[in-house]
Amino acid sequence: MKKGFILWFTGLSGSGKSTLSKLIEERLLERGIPVEILDGDEVRTNLSKGLGFSKEDRDINIRRIGYVANLLARNGVCAITAAISPYHAVRDEVRASVDGRAGFVETYCECSIEKLTARDVKGLYKKALAGEIKNFTGVSDPYEAPLNPECVVHTGDEPAEQSCARILKTLEMLGYIPAVVGDDYGALEEKAVAERLRDLGYLG
Amino acid sequence: MKKGFILWFTGLSGSGKSTLSKLIEERLLERGIPVEILDGDEVRTNLSKGLGFSKEDRDINIRRIGYVANLLARNGVCAITAAISPYHAVRDEVRASVDGRAGFVETYCECSIEKLTARDVKGLYKKALAGEIKNFTGVSDPYEAPLNPECVVHTGDEPAEQSCARILKTLEMLGYIPAVVGDDYGALEEKAVAERLRDLGYLG
Repeated sequence: MKKGFILWFTGLSGSGKSTLSKLIEERLLERGIPVEILDGDEVRTNLSKGLGFSKEDRDINIRRIGYVANLLARNGVCAITAAISPYHAVRDEVRASVDGRAGFVETYCECSIEKLTARDVKGLYKKALAGEIKNFTGVSDPYEAPLNPECVVHTGDEPAEQSCARILKTLEMLGYIPAVVGDDYGALEEKAVAERLRDLGYLG
Repeated sequence: MKKGFILWFTGLSGSGKSTLSKLIEERLLERGIPVEILDGDEVRTNLSKGLGFSKEDRDINIRRIGYVANLLARNGVCAITAAISPYHAVRDEVRASVDGRAGFVETYCECSIEKLTARDVKGLYKKALAGEIKNFTGVSDPYEAPLNPECVVHTGDEPAEQSCARILKTLEMLGYIPAVVGDDYGALEEKAVAERLRDLGYLG
């Protein structure tokens, strides 16, 4: 059994977490790696019904996702989490709680609030800016961007395929998935990925 | 990857669910099968803090355990659940929700309330009978024994090793774990296990 890992997405609503989760899932399944996506909404339905969006309730929700992701990852699964997870402290708490038998790969979906508002696929930013949604991350609630994530993707400026390639390259270089050749962006990403991981103390 | 399964214990408090979970875990790990125990108390801490012991809250807790157990089992893990899970309806709901990629083996820890009260390891029955604990299953709250569980162990009348052997034999006959020879009770249990499984429509 290959070592499992948690691919922990964090980023504002609409920043591409779910889209990238599905893309990555596809690519990993092609490589024969078992995957489970713990999507923010789905997890709220199954594990956290009744919880709201206060800091306390968000933290509890994130801890639960972390608990389940860890159970999966330490059994060789790639657990992809796609919740906003706005707070440093609880993300770091989850990272610290992860078993030695599993890896943790924090991936920041970076996209400016201006771009998200302009795009506004679900019309949520408009409502939030009009004060119709309370505790809306990035508008009326804080979002703390990660300081040292294993991977950053700029979803407002690059095609999803490029973000996807960077994530896969990161997972390859960390040794969690076998390397394959042939994707369009992989070679381009290699240097930047290696630099980031070296700066974080990986890759010796 | 071998097909995973949920070993779903049900039974009154003190009926041996946790003890048997640990015994079974040991034996399965010896056979190289990945195991996770989702114990009632641990799951309450990690997934269901804030929930009480009303029927509604118990049901929510059981659904959450079922959700996580299914995620594990469909990735080849043996997920052992050890919550009282007193109600038919929600146990059957969990059974029905289990993925085609996973098995479900309901195992009833049968032990009379008289024996549990006489033994009363944690002193809980005494308190419950004195009215000091509300919603105590079997005393002040209902327990609905399963009608057609895949396995029944009589934890008030037989040594834990015998219960353990019957469960392992059941898992072997259902094809979830490889058969091994050499345990003391296995041969004795074989006929009874086969009869039960045949009655339930397994084993062709």
